[in-house]
Parts: sequence; C-alpha cells; structure tokens
Amino acid sequence: MMKKKGLLIIIDGMADRPVKALGGKTPLEHGVFPSFNEVARRGINGLMDPIAPGIAIGSDTSHISILGYDAYKVYRGRGYLEALGEGLPVKEGDIGFRVNFATVKDGVVIDRRAGRIQEGQAALAQAINTGVKLPSDVQAIFKESTGHRGALILRGSGLSEKVTDSDPHAVNERVREVKPLAKEAEFTAYVLNEFIRQSAEILSKHEVNKERVRKGLLPANYLLIRGPGVKPEVESFKQKFGLNGACIAATALVRGVAASLGLELLKVEGMTGEYNTNELAKARETVKALEKYDFIFTHFKPTDAASHDGNVNLKLEMLAKADRMVGYILANVDLDEVVLCLTADHTTPLEVREHMGDPVPVAIAGEAVRVDDVNKFNERSCAKGGLGRIRGNELMNIMHNYMNRMEKFGA
Amino acid sequence: MMKKKGLLIIIDGMADRPVKALGGKTPLEHGVFPSFNEVARRGINGLMDPIAPGIAIGSDTSHISILGYDAYKVYRGRGYLEALGEGLPVKEGDIGFRVNFATVKDGVVIDRRAGRIQEGQAALAQAINTGVKLPSDVQAIFKESTGHRGALILRGSGLSEKVTDSDPHAVNERVREVKPLAKEAEFTAYVLNEFIRQSAEILSKHEVNKERVRKGLLPANYLLIRGPGVKPEVESFKQKFGLNGACIAATALVRGVAASLGLELLKVEGMTGEYNTNELAKARETVKALEKYDFIFTHFKPTDAASHDGNVNLKLEMLAKADRMVGYILANVDLDEVVLCLTADHTTPLEVREHMGDPVPVAIAGEAVRVDDVNKFNERSCAKGGLGRIRGNELMNIMHNYMNRMEKFGA
Repeated sequence: MMKKKGLLIIIDGMADRPVKALGGKTPLEHGVFPSFNEVARRGINGLMDPIAPGIAIGSDTSHISILGYDAYKVYRGRGYLEALGEGLPVKEGDIGFRVNFATVKDGVVIDRRAGRIQEGQAALAQAINTGVKLPSDVQAIFKESTGHRGALILRGSGLSEKVTDSDPHAVNERVREVKPLAKEAEFTAYVLNEFIRQSAEILSKHEVNKERVRKGLLPANYLLIRGPGVKPEVESFKQKFGLNGACIAATALVRGVAASLGLELLKVEGMTGEYNTNELAKARETVKALEKYDFIFTHFKPTDAASHDGNVNLKLEMLAKADRMVGYILANVDLDEVVLCLTADHTTPLEVREHMGDPVPVAIAGEAVRVDDVNKFNERSCAKGGLGRIRGNELMNIMHNYMNRMEKFGA
Repeated sequence: MMKKKGLLIIIDGMADRPVKALGGKTPLEHGVFPSFNEVARRGINGLMDPIAPGIAIGSDTSHISILGYDAYKVYRGRGYLEALGEGLPVKEGDIGFRVNFATVKDGVVIDRRAGRIQEGQAALAQAINTGVKLPSDVQAIFKESTGHRGALILRGSGLSEKVTDSDPHAVNERVREVKPLAKEAEFTAYVLNEFIRQSAEILSKHEVNKERVRKGLLPANYLLIRGPGVKPEVESFKQKFGLNGACIAATALVRGVAASLGLELLKVEGMTGEYNTNELAKARETVKALEKYDFIFTHFKPTDAASHDGNVNLKLEMLAKADRMVGYILANVDLDEVVLCLTADHTTPLEVREHMGDPVPVAIAGEAVRVDDVNKFNERSCAKGGLGRIRGNELMNIMHNYMNRMEKFGA
C-alpha cells in the first residue's frame, strides 16, 4: 500500500452566487479556467460546507475547519492568530490583538486608517515598544504590518482575552474604553486602557506624526484595538494526521492558523496576498515543497479581495491567475503520487461583498478516487459529483484516506 | 399503516476503488450482477459512510455502526465480540481475547499460525482448560476455532481489558510480555502472563505436538494473545428499535457483534464464511427466518477475503455468488411486506488489500421508497441516487421508517 502525499489548494472566496452582470452565472461558470476544469475532470467532485450548511464564516474559522478541526471547539479569537501570522514572537498564554493606526481628535475617530499611512510605522512601533510601561509583569509587544495594520501581544500573569474592542468600527464615533467581559478580565482591561493611553501620548509627540501634519497628512496618533484571541487548544496537525505539513500563504491570518496547528510556514519571493502576487512563484514552491513534506497547503488570497471590492472583472482576472497557478502544479506533479484537492474557504458573493454561508465546490484528484463525470469546476457542476455534500472538517479525513494513510478504527 | 419487516444484506468489503486490471472500473462496475441491479432498480440508492467520511474501519466497528449504534461510544475492543461469536459462554464482565496457536522457539516467533494447524486443536484446548491454574478466583476459558485461531475469556474479580498484546504481530520477533495500560490492569497483566506461561508448558509436552514434530510439522507450542475487549455498553437492538431480530452470518466477529446487541444467531448448514460458503442455503434460511422475525441481518463474507488477497477474479466470482444469494431472496420475498437493504460494511480496495475509508453503495427497496432512476448497483451509479450520502448509523432509522415502525419525536 503506497502512501501518498497531499496537496490542498484553497482559493480564498472563490465561490460565488449568480451574478447579474454575468447573466446569472457565477464567475467560475462565466470564465474559462482550463486547469480548474482539469482537476474536476480527473477527480471526484462535490460541494463543501466549510463548517455547516448556511453558516457564514471568517477566514480563520474556515481554515481551522478545513484543516480538520472543530472550529466551534478550538477557535479562541482572531488576534492571536494574526499576531502569530505576522511573525510576532508569540508564546502560549499570550493574548493577541489586531491593531489599526488611526487618527483621533478629541476622542473621536476621524480616520480608522490614519490616512492609509505607508511610511514610518516601524519607527512608531519602536517608540511604543520602548516607551510604554505597564503595571505588574505585563509586557506589550506591538508590530506594524502593511499600511495601517498591526498586531499586539500582551504577555504576563493574570491576563484574559475576555475584553471588548477599543475600536468603535466606524468614523465620527468616540473611541471606546476597553471593558472586561468577565470578572477575570478586569486587570487586562485596565492594562489595555493604560497601553492605549500611553501609546497615544507617544504617538502624538512623535516626529513621524509631526512631519505628517506638516505635509497635511492625517497623523497616526491612536491605536484602535480589536479581536482579542489566544492560542486555539488543539493537538497539532502532525499529531492528528501524522503528516509533516507546510503552508504557502501570504495572508497573516491564514499563516497564523497554519502556524497554530504546527504547519511550517514557507517563504516565497513575490508572494504578497495582493492582486500583484506572483502565482507562478507560489506554484513552483508548492511543487518543490512536495518533495520535502507529506502535505502542503497552498493558499491564494486576491480572489476574495476582489469579491469584497465587488469588482467582477478583477475577480475573473484573479481566478485566471489562480488557474495559472494550478496549471503549473498539474504540469509538474504526478497525481499517482499526490492527492490534490482544489476548493475555496468560503463563498464571497460579488454582489454581497461579504463572506456568506453557501457551500463551495470541491474537487479531489488522485489515483485512488472514483473519478466522476463532472468536467467543469464550478458551484453547480460540482454539485452533481460523486462526493456529494461534505463538511469542511471531513475533508482532511477524506484526503487522508485517499493518501492511504488512514488508520483503521476497530479490527 | 402496515408494519413491515426488514432485511439488511451486507456483502463484506464489496465496495472498491477503480481497479487498473479492470480498466479503471470497480468490480461491481465491471461484472454482471443482475440481482444487485434489480435491488437498485426497484429501490432508492445512495452512498453510505459506514462511520464518517474518510474513516477506515474494522468489521466490528462498521457493523456496530450500521446496526444503528455510535461505534465511538460503545466499542470496547474485538476480543469479547470474537469470543461471543465463537460460542464461548461469555458473561457480562468477562474479558475476551483473540488467540493464535503459534510456533515459538527460544522466545522467538517462528510461525504465527503453527504451520496452519488443522487437527488436534480441540485436544490442545481441553488440556489447557483443565491444566492451567490461575490465582485468586480467575478462570480462563479457551476455545479453538478454525485453523490456528481461537478465543479466550478471563473471568473473575479485579480484571480489566486495558492490557497490551503478547502477539508481536510479526515473525522472527520475540513474544511480548503482557503489560498493563492502566493501574487497574496490573493484576490482569500478571494473570495473563501466567496463563501464557502455563499453557506453553502444557502445549509443548502435549502428544498432539509430539506427533506434529515427528511428522516434520511445526508444533502449536504457544498461544499469541491480542485484541482484548469487553462487552459494548449498549441497549439491545430490541429495546432500541422494538424489533425481534436475527442474524445469519458465519464470521465469528460479525456473529459476536450481532449477539452483543441481542440479535439471535441462526445456524445454516454449509455456511462457512469462506470461499466455499453455501450462498443458497443462506438465502433459503433468510427467506424462512423472515416469517418468524421482524428483522434479519444476513452477512456474506468471502468478497472481503478476496479483496484482502488482492485477487480480482476471485472477488468477481464471490460477488457473483452473493448476487445469486440476493437473487434467490428477491424471488421469494415480497417487497410489499419487506424493506430490503443491500450494502457493504466498508470498502476493501483490491489494490490496497485493506479496509479503506471510501463510502459504500447502498440500495433500499420496498413499497414505501421513492424509487429513483439508478438501475445499476455500484459505487458511481448509486452516488447519483435519491438517498444522497448517508452515515452508517442512520441506516437503521431510515429502514425503520420505511418499515412504518418509527415513533414520532414530538407531537
């Protein structure tokens, strides 16, 4: 019995609903995607509810589920995953938060993105990390990310993730005081408010912001904090499936999910998670990594971004880009040795611009599968395939089975 | 509302994956099985995951699940079921084990099957049962089965099934000392090692073995012990479904599962569980038993054995044999009065030679079902049927419903 390797390709937000501008077709139905279709033709197809029918989900919960875990049981918030994915030196027990550089005047949010700041964020972060002094043994580690984004971790004894956001999630609203959601979080709320107060002081006096004001730009004078989270309580992917796995993804949150499960994060030159990402560089790294690892999870982000933007043509363009990535992989991977799964993490309809709870198409190709008669990879054709309708957290067991690695329960 | 009877026919390991030697068809797709197809044509069809998508299972766990129970909750190991199925006088609280007569020299396994011993096993078993003296109130009851196989029960106070195997599961390895897997199993491990030591002494001095050695045969001088188990904690089939049920099966393990649920075990002349089993005798007994019982579970084993042997032609032959069994049943049972289900307990791909986690085809025929347009009984055609993809432990509820016996939940 030959053990096979596994490759899971997730095209973020790929699935859609009928689009009026496309005559009632979905982008997958409207466009021409020869490599997606080749996976369908050589595979067994179906629909997958990332968590359960009708449930709309985030990119964190969906990936936790599709990688084989019960997201309802293990998910403990976004902040920790984001911080981990951003490369912060996160330790078990840390509380992670997502952070925006913002512009605040007299306690009111003027811009949640500080004029989409592009320069000087590292200097601002360094000033905060050296300047803020917190009570007891609590340490705050803040790291800037792309643009106005950042991540924060709080480390120390007596901390809890059960606190509210300081971010009002809208402009022209007052910034919020962080409040405890449970008795044990009172100290954390106090510490976090202190961090926000001190960092605002440091930011407003900082030379980067003085320079921005001189140039007529909005100052990054306040940190809006949201999405507290701690490490998901999981057995590692290696323990659960016995696979040495790695992840090829640019998006911090997805990287964080993968890292929290113990997947190794691979670096690829030119992989950005944005519209300009280098899909062929990702494909090459995927093919190369399959030599070293048992399991590769390759993620492609900008399809989802185009859907959030409601940009039909851009979504078609990004799907074509992802199709090229899959094409290179198909040309260079032997499906007698690798079980390849193509799917999405959720449906992001162009007309809704948000994640919705519709199921996504899924195709699994490999030597062991009962190839069905589906030859187009899209939402409606895959619904007629031999896989039927499965759930996200069943997918890894199904792949594991086709990889001939499943251990028998019973005798 | 007329209450109907139920007939569940399980063809063991019938389902397969595409087979290269059959041009990518499965055995069910390649062969001609008119009676299987008649069930599909007159029924509603689907795919069934014996436990859950992708999960590979044993014949014990699969039958527990397909008979309506949650195998994860109730399964407590194989040995008890095997001993029960072998007809040992098992009582609640007993620990059951599977046993091999083996040939051991200087503590190393020479042959795990004692030269496939065919004669004298009863005399050896009797010598062990009368000769071995165990501490405290512990009793050991050993019974030979076919060939090198046997079953053992330990009865007494302070026993636990949480012990390791003495069987190294490979030749040229040293026999293992039984070890406790929990504090409460220390006494059991001690007793079992004592049983093994004393039985080895008795066996090596026994006339049957002296005679074997004189003839140049390997002596059955050691008992390898594995698969400890206790009674599954279940409500009976009768309590759960209100059905007087009986089982027609030759395989000890399957008989044990049925008996542990309270199904009556019926005897059939010529039923062997081997390639030579008398399928028409089983069919006749099935038809006859349907007069007396509400529910019959008829099991057919050798298809699975052919798959484990990787023998394509033999599997086709055994499927044809099972098809004849089903043919006789269809000719003699009125589907207006009986709900008939045809399925497999798991997929055993010829090319893998082990149970795998692929779903199995299922067809249910009877007066109440919404007959679909599937007219061939196989893995890919049934996937397009009206049942969709169901789980093993949902099947009994579905049959129970078509039998018009389901009691309403709610008002």
